[in-house]
Amino acid sequence: MNRPLKVALLGCGTVGSSVLRALQEQADDLGARVGRAVEVAGVAVRRPDHHPDVPAELLTTDAHGLVTRDDVDLVVEVIGGIEPARSLMLAAFEAGKSVVSANKALLAEDGVALHAAAAKAGVDLYYEAAVAGAIPILRPLRESLVGDQLSRIVGIVNGTTNYILSRMAETGAGFGEALAEATELGYAEADPTADVDGFDAAAKAAILASLAFHTPVSAADVHREGISTVTATDVARAAEIGCTVKLLAICERVDGNGDGDSVSVRVHPAMIPTSHPLASVGGAFNAVFVEAEAAGQLMFYGQGAGGEPTASAVLGDLVAVGRNRLAGAAGQGPSGYADLAVRPMAETPTRYHVSLDVADKPGVLAAVAQEFAQHGVSISTVRQTGRGDAATLVIVTHSAPDAALSATIAALREMPAVRGVTSVLRVEGLQ
Amino acid sequence: MNRPLKVALLGCGTVGSSVLRALQEQADDLGARVGRAVEVAGVAVRRPDHHPDVPAELLTTDAHGLVTRDDVDLVVEVIGGIEPARSLMLAAFEAGKSVVSANKALLAEDGVALHAAAAKAGVDLYYEAAVAGAIPILRPLRESLVGDQLSRIVGIVNGTTNYILSRMAETGAGFGEALAEATELGYAEADPTADVDGFDAAAKAAILASLAFHTPVSAADVHREGISTVTATDVARAAEIGCTVKLLAICERVDGNGDGDSVSVRVHPAMIPTSHPLASVGGAFNAVFVEAEAAGQLMFYGQGAGGEPTASAVLGDLVAVGRNRLAGAAGQGPSGYADLAVRPMAETPTRYHVSLDVADKPGVLAAVAQEFAQHGVSISTVRQTGRGDAATLVIVTHSAPDAALSATIAALREMPAVRGVTSVLRVEGLQ
Repeated sequence: MNRPLKVALLGCGTVGSSVLRALQEQADDLGARVGRAVEVAGVAVRRPDHHPDVPAELLTTDAHGLVTRDDVDLVVEVIGGIEPARSLMLAAFEAGKSVVSANKALLAEDGVALHAAAAKAGVDLYYEAAVAGAIPILRPLRESLVGDQLSRIVGIVNGTTNYILSRMAETGAGFGEALAEATELGYAEADPTADVDGFDAAAKAAILASLAFHTPVSAADVHREGISTVTATDVARAAEIGCTVKLLAICERVDGNGDGDSVSVRVHPAMIPTSHPLASVGGAFNAVFVEAEAAGQLMFYGQGAGGEPTASAVLGDLVAVGRNRLAGAAGQGPSGYADLAVRPMAETPTRYHVSLDVADKPGVLAAVAQEFAQHGVSISTVRQTGRGDAATLVIVTHSAPDAALSATIAALREMPAVRGVTSVLRVEGLQ
Repeated sequence: MNRPLKVALLGCGTVGSSVLRALQEQADDLGARVGRAVEVAGVAVRRPDHHPDVPAELLTTDAHGLVTRDDVDLVVEVIGGIEPARSLMLAAFEAGKSVVSANKALLAEDGVALHAAAAKAGVDLYYEAAVAGAIPILRPLRESLVGDQLSRIVGIVNGTTNYILSRMAETGAGFGEALAEATELGYAEADPTADVDGFDAAAKAAILASLAFHTPVSAADVHREGISTVTATDVARAAEIGCTVKLLAICERVDGNGDGDSVSVRVHPAMIPTSHPLASVGGAFNAVFVEAEAAGQLMFYGQGAGGEPTASAVLGDLVAVGRNRLAGAAGQGPSGYADLAVRPMAETPTRYHVSLDVADKPGVLAAVAQEFAQHGVSISTVRQTGRGDAATLVIVTHSAPDAALSATIAALREMPAVRGVTSVLRVEGLQ
């Protein structure tokens, strides 16, 4: 007799209840795909009385007891946050259980140690749902593209900020107004810090970079800037040069010119050309753009959040982990063999867009251009628009170390001929 | 001492030579990712003198001898076509070797038997490169989305026809002219039949449907129409209703209303709205659009052909198969447990666009509408444009069985008031 695979579910919020429903309603299909019936062993929650839809005999407040129960094979962790998720995961590994998680914060903070614990126990740790919801991206990076050399990943991986920036572009609203609308419509949480300040995207960037470059990268390694400083002017200036503003998670291999390559991992708003495949990713959708040496350009697009889409990713991992369990083998964890250095933001090559209000008199452009040159920054394009005794200069630079670019901006602010620096934003994806 | 994994390469054309180069130039990275050095055991070709770049000691004309050699672990089959690829693959399985293939024609014709042979031998058969080149799509379907219920896949999976249709839209050229240009530029082969008549796309559709619906589907099950009948008028009419013409590979689960679901698998040109994510997939690019119950809409985009992109997919599979080999376990083959019926095209619900030249006199629209109604076809929109004593009627239907739609068209051609049926094309993706 083949006894069923038993699943312990930790957490029963939006994602957890979608997973639970699927485990119940699609039990036959899931069983056929795993090769063995799959049953729910229990559901650990903090307040059982808040879950009237869950059969009472499944509910428990003793999460630790549940994950270490002898009859449990697999643990699905959808609590989120660092603790108690980490302790429960480690307890599960120690008890020989495989874990499927949607916990980007925990994986980004402590992925190396967690993978080591899983490997030591000979069990699986899968977490496709942690990045870009339903979009299959971690497995393609870890498996499909593992024979290729990745050069860069650029992702729109946070739906809240993408919704806000999309609305700013559509309506001309400022950040505050667009955030208020997003909050009212439920696209932003009451405390939007994790999204708006880029913490959520930074955790996802760390996970993507780790897999793409076979290098341990944690959230603390990620340079992070949010979108609260993006102004209506920035968005308007972007449109004028054929661009749109997006919050990007960028993971890039930087050529060390013989001194050893490094990786740059960063999250910041940037202008991208409207012709770029990522530019048309609107509203709460997510997309991940990948460049690889042999494969060329790839893009993965879909819903990045929500109970059902995230549950789809969790269940895909659950079937994979279940199959591995039956085969008596753990799947391959990520490999950190390359162990590249993470490049500081100051030394990372970027490009800037700068808009300046200047006095419209001879020699101003020359003086401004000289300031860029003194910092070793070469200019790609300049557009000058006169209006009365003032003029607007819109400058897009070539690539230069980020520190040289920010020093240039600081120096421009001090120039007498420059009345104001009205917009500064990095530019990505321009030819 | 861990002896290296040895790879037998069958075929050394565009894809094979890219694979060989990567195996040589990226040996360190590939070895680190597999967990064991990977070496080329030999390269089987028909004419060794045509391959001056390949070390002579690797070349052999004895493909069968090579795949069954004791020291060979993995076989990469990039010969294409049915024979001798099939016999060599079966010989490899029998000798206990795992196989990575890019052979869509063979997998679409004989996938079930080949998978059975691999399973019997306890070895792997992977073929990500067979569909949409470098785009990871088979592994996402087989693994990432295995916990979800797929409802449909719509793919642009043939670059040659997409190039031709893109050029027709851009220049107003007819099919013949655009094909001639594609041939001259090397986007179409001297004998373009496999691409233009939809055979290539049909093989890919069969593979996609098999994985998506856990149902064996072979190329012979696929309804297939090519693009040689698409006219400049069709393309112009599409633009007038906000659409563009694409050759689509469509795999769809059709609700049986309690009588058991079935699958429709078909390749034909169709109008899709320019707002659809697939509409902007231009030139020789490929994209696969997926709809799943929980995940919602997903899209996978990238290069669908070419030596390097296809080699990327082959090498990803090679690393996965190599890891499985070291773990002493075969990966999961596809599952055919659902075994849904393949629905005949005549019974498949589709929508049509029809343009008619009619006499501009009272009652013609009523008579035409009556003809649709008699066949049980309901009309979604009609646009009538008068010009002198003639008028043009552009009609888009609601969904109806394909046979009812084609019978309606045949009847319209016989109506005295209809001077000509100037364009008929199916419509996909309209709301």
